[in-house]
Amino acid sequence: MIPGKIAAGVSYVGSSFHGWQSQPELPTVQEALQQAISKINNAPITLHAAGRTDVGVHATGQVIAFSPDHYRETSVWMRGLNGLTPPSIQINWVQPVAESFHPRYAAVARRYVYVFQDQHHDPFLRGRVWQTPQLNADVMHQAAQHLVGEHDFSSVRGAGCQSVTPYRCVHSIQVVRRHAFVMMEIQANAFVLHMVRNIARLLVECSDVSEAKHAQQILLARDRTQLGATAPPDGLYLTSVRYPGQDFPPVPEPAFLGATYNAAHTGEA
Amino acid sequence: MIPGKIAAGVSYVGSSFHGWQSQPELPTVQEALQQAISKINNAPITLHAAGRTDVGVHATGQVIAFSPDHYRETSVWMRGLNGLTPPSIQINWVQPVAESFHPRYAAVARRYVYVFQDQHHDPFLRGRVWQTPQLNADVMHQAAQHLVGEHDFSSVRGAGCQSVTPYRCVHSIQVVRRHAFVMMEIQANAFVLHMVRNIARLLVECSDVSEAKHAQQILLARDRTQLGATAPPDGLYLTSVRYPGQDFPPVPEPAFLGATYNAAHTGEA
Repeated sequence: MIPGKIAAGVSYVGSSFHGWQSQPELPTVQEALQQAISKINNAPITLHAAGRTDVGVHATGQVIAFSPDHYRETSVWMRGLNGLTPPSIQINWVQPVAESFHPRYAAVARRYVYVFQDQHHDPFLRGRVWQTPQLNADVMHQAAQHLVGEHDFSSVRGAGCQSVTPYRCVHSIQVVRRHAFVMMEIQANAFVLHMVRNIARLLVECSDVSEAKHAQQILLARDRTQLGATAPPDGLYLTSVRYPGQDFPPVPEPAFLGATYNAAHTGEA
Repeated sequence: MIPGKIAAGVSYVGSSFHGWQSQPELPTVQEALQQAISKINNAPITLHAAGRTDVGVHATGQVIAFSPDHYRETSVWMRGLNGLTPPSIQINWVQPVAESFHPRYAAVARRYVYVFQDQHHDPFLRGRVWQTPQLNADVMHQAAQHLVGEHDFSSVRGAGCQSVTPYRCVHSIQVVRRHAFVMMEIQANAFVLHMVRNIARLLVECSDVSEAKHAQQILLARDRTQLGATAPPDGLYLTSVRYPGQDFPPVPEPAFLGATYNAAHTGEA
């Protein structure tokens, strides 16, 4: 049988690794996955991913792809990879894809979630959220609407960004409260360096001054120095990637956000 | 000023330590706290706690007490201890107490919570919950009621328990669903070794066979071998300790359980 190309959806705890991309002597997500895949493949194998997440950044919806030397059932890949990777990595689905599929270059939209915890700070979610003083999710949501659309995002672009242009197209941003958490969900065609973390900082500033228009002022300034320090990676999750004509299974958000339990699953009232 | 005795309420992530009690060469919660307190005290100091939690067991409501050599404001202890301990430890409150107060011997009741995650398993709460297949919280709650009262708890008593008697008095047990989680809260005068973790296993067995009476059968057998393996420490939290005539501040449950947000705090609708 022709081995074919394989795609997989991956969750991981970013704080357990030194980022996505392989580096000598440091534990990275790419290295952990590549080792597991190579073991099942009985030969070294190269892996591509939709997004090369930074140190400390998490994922629920990272998409990877690789071309193995031998055919294996998707269930064999699924069980094998979950068995061979550390507990801070989870394979959510495995699916055959066309040889031409590239998880990074074929992507037309990426979605990230940033999670703030502004209530009941406790040590159990440290590294998984940004623990902040009290926030106003309504002001943050209004502020975020100023960022939607095609803009020059220089004000929220990290130093060292290698993109040729500061322009990106933000499709949507929602900010909602969930119990002790405030959750920002943002979708764009692509992102400049540290864009989501700088937007997280910007929205906290808007909440602090109770002024949604502050977001527009900072955006129009096109000047990164107008904004405070980049928000920590702790609250950032790569949640989904969109490919035209390619349907991958949806991935639920982290369980600690308290997604409503579906009673139909158990017959419980 | 007379230095007086100081009590404090402490949360910690059990998986970051080798249990509560000091051991040579291993990081323990007691050691981390004792070092911080001794630093502020400018002299070594001995620390007592309400419960000597096992390896991997968490706390939101551990109570500690110590007698410093010098008087310091409670706010100095609070800031100092939170600054000098690792991020996996949090001091929730500090309060002066009578010299006679002993957090272990003065306690008349202890409360533990055990958290199961039976939905949306993801890597973000590994070590903080027990990830299980689908559970029926209603059956578990009914089963748990068979354990309330004064009983011989030999069936849920760990080998190596040093107590002179297997009798304990369980004041109450509640099992409730919270989103992707099932939460068991148990209060007793005291517990035999591994009692809560073995009750967690027992209630999962009751859910598996959809039979609340199974709990009674196991209890009456007074035989630990009738029950499966002890549940992991990952889901266990020491949440509060009661002292007659002594009021300590309440401690909220872990934020990931989705306690209802109090909108009054921010003026948000």
